[in-house]
Amino acid sequence: MGKLRSDISISLDGFVAGPNQSEENPLGEGGERLHDWVVPLAAWRESHGYEGGEVNESARVVEEARENVGAALMGRNMFGPPSGGPWDDGQWTGWWGDDPPYHYPVFILTHHPRDPLEMEGGTTFHFVTDGIESALDQAREAAGAKDVTIWGGAQAVNQYLAAGLLDELELHVVPVLLGDGARLFDNLGDAEVKLEQVRAVEAPGVTHLRYRLVR
Amino acid sequence: MGKLRSDISISLDGFVAGPNQSEENPLGEGGERLHDWVVPLAAWRESHGYEGGEVNESARVVEEARENVGAALMGRNMFGPPSGGPWDDGQWTGWWGDDPPYHYPVFILTHHPRDPLEMEGGTTFHFVTDGIESALDQAREAAGAKDVTIWGGAQAVNQYLAAGLLDELELHVVPVLLGDGARLFDNLGDAEVKLEQVRAVEAPGVTHLRYRLVR
Repeated sequence: MGKLRSDISISLDGFVAGPNQSEENPLGEGGERLHDWVVPLAAWRESHGYEGGEVNESARVVEEARENVGAALMGRNMFGPPSGGPWDDGQWTGWWGDDPPYHYPVFILTHHPRDPLEMEGGTTFHFVTDGIESALDQAREAAGAKDVTIWGGAQAVNQYLAAGLLDELELHVVPVLLGDGARLFDNLGDAEVKLEQVRAVEAPGVTHLRYRLVR
Repeated sequence: MGKLRSDISISLDGFVAGPNQSEENPLGEGGERLHDWVVPLAAWRESHGYEGGEVNESARVVEEARENVGAALMGRNMFGPPSGGPWDDGQWTGWWGDDPPYHYPVFILTHHPRDPLEMEGGTTFHFVTDGIESALDQAREAAGAKDVTIWGGAQAVNQYLAAGLLDELELHVVPVLLGDGARLFDNLGDAEVKLEQVRAVEAPGVTHLRYRLVR
């Protein structure tokens, strides 16, 4: 069985999205600055169908984060639309166009059932309504020996953290203050979450901090 | 004129002290874990009058933080006692015994006037009641060409951040979640604080992130 891991861009004041997320502004006000470090990278551009781009210390980190991943988990807000409500009109297919950059099954945590959505390029969105453990079980089965990654958002990662199910967390710490928004490490309740620092990688405009969750 | 800088240990969830600070627990519940990385260091032990200790990547960071400092600023809660109230009984002289590890003038931000307190070894505590800018002016004058450092706590650093007076901030990011307590980067209001990453140093049990404040 692979690991359950997550890597996520986070502001220096602890937010993984800014306030007032909207269809125009999926990462909230100021939240797009969380990705300033990744968008210029050749590794990111390639996975989104573009050529060229920069290669720096972040490239290795991004490649490692994408390696050996067989399935993913995703919160309902990250899948969208942020206007909320059930999606029984069947129109919304995520933020990523017809060929999302995943190329494996993605399990969406939601309260609203919906048939699986098969996209181009190997990505299928599955909608799981019976809780985070069921979603993880399904993702693990789909991933086989490979790892399962949590793409976010904050609430999804926090839930798996609080449940003691996460094995590894990599934070891309961006020198930005958002002041408000979706906070990582929030609402962990009485969960005793123990972390061990694995490594730190300094790169232009970001530092990558990797932690192992200790059981 | 030197810089105004601060370096402070911070939990991964953004707290520089845990909840319920008390005389028995000056860093709040769990807060002593914020210093697990520094206490074993030879550099720390020496500045507190002990011999021996470890030398690792943190040593250089601690030495640099202490170098070229001519005066310091400190919040009233960090000076103590946490029971609060005016200190007109004149008994409380800080947490650090007769010979505090500063050896330069320290300016305490407070609403309660008190005569300066001259300690052994060159540390004098001055109590400033007319605001953070006045305290900074006095500290700069005392420091001469050297830098002024803010020792904490969160509120003091946040106030200087919000006022746009800080030049450099070094965070010692510790793999600990405190869940509650004194949060850095809180109550910055409408201040637009812009940071530029200067460097990251990975060390056992901590990563040191240095930022420059951009005007």
